[in-house]
Formats: sequence, C-alpha cells, structure tokens
Amino acid sequence: MSLPHATSGQLIDIRPLGTQLSSAPSRAILKSQGLELMRMVLPAGKTVAEHQVPGEITIQCLEGRIELSAHGNRQVLRGGDMVYLEGGVPHALHAQEDASLLVTILLTRGT
Amino acid sequence: MSLPHATSGQLIDIRPLGTQLSSAPSRAILKSQGLELMRMVLPAGKTVAEHQVPGEITIQCLEGRIELSAHGNRQVLRGGDMVYLEGGVPHALHAQEDASLLVTILLTRGT
Repeated sequence: MSLPHATSGQLIDIRPLGTQLSSAPSRAILKSQGLELMRMVLPAGKTVAEHQVPGEITIQCLEGRIELSAHGNRQVLRGGDMVYLEGGVPHALHAQEDASLLVTILLTRGT
Repeated sequence: MSLPHATSGQLIDIRPLGTQLSSAPSRAILKSQGLELMRMVLPAGKTVAEHQVPGEITIQCLEGRIELSAHGNRQVLRGGDMVYLEGGVPHALHAQEDASLLVTILLTRGT
C-alpha cells in the first residue's frame, strides 16, 4: 500500500493503530527538504539490527513496547516515550510487544 | 521551573499531562545542532497570534483540542493529530480546550 506523502498543512493521524497494528505495514509519512517522517511497525520479536543514519533522529513509541539499544545502554520505550539521538549514533531496536513508532529523521545536506 | 534539556539517548516522557495540564508550564525539551523540541501548554481560550519561523516544523497535539490556522485553512487537532509546515509558513493557534503540543522545529543554518 503506497499512500501519498503528507504536504504542508495536511492533518496526519498518528494515533495508535490498536487492533489494526498486527496487520499494518510500516509507511512513509513525509519526505521534505529537511525532514523524513515514517511510522515503523514492528511485530513482537522483531529486531532491527544495529545501524546508524547521518542525521539526528527522534524515535517516539506510539504503542506497544520496544527495547532501544544506543550509547551502550538498553532501555524500554512504551507509548508516550521518545528518544533523541545525535546523527551517526549506532542503535538497534527489538520489539518486546507489537509496536509502532514515529521516526523523525533530519536529512543532512547532500543526502 | 527550568529543567535540563534532554541529551542523546535519554528517555523523554511526552504522555498527556492529564490532571496536571491546567497548572503545567510550557517547557523546552531539547535544543541540538539542528533541532528544537518543546512541549507547549495552551489553556482553553488561549491564542497564539499568527507568526512564522524560518525552519520546517511539526506540531503534534498530545492532548486537548486546538485550532490551527495555516495556508488559509482552519483545522482542529486532537490528541494523536499532527501537522507539518514548511519553513516560513504563517500560522496561528487557538486552544478550544486545555491542550499540550509537541512542537518540533528544524533549525536552519545561521539561526
């Protein structure tokens, strides 16, 4: 399912998916000049191996429970928790429950 | 109340303030090289007059109800709604209920 990206001024729904979560795909929300937004859906047990992106990011847990590993620490994010990471910081994710995340990535010049 | 800014990897709680909302101040969450995050608390009836910032922004309603005017439209944001605005877009806010917002501002070079 490919939905059009949001445009300036358009309402974006980032409520928890609830009963729809287990069948929902991850999806891009927006890609602008400086910013990329996506809702990442992670089923329970899913791991995103350690990686890094050039730009600063925020990871906001919208629902469920994920473990974030970064800066040598592991911590659990539940709905309403968010974390900011500087650009280039290696991090990994593991879903302890079905979860969805709002991921915001600052695009660096040249990417 | 001046709380220290969040640092990379630190857990940030952006849950609704609920019964604390009516007495809570707005507060800065983070200011990094490229990004500024704040929780803006708007009591019912409060208006933020039309203004603009150089960088792109997102406005996420965490709780309550606000009316956003931008691009010649008025629309209502409730908890779980967000809007992206390009840099330099004039916008105004009016709280229809006590509300709190997560405001994310991309800092442009030179600001």
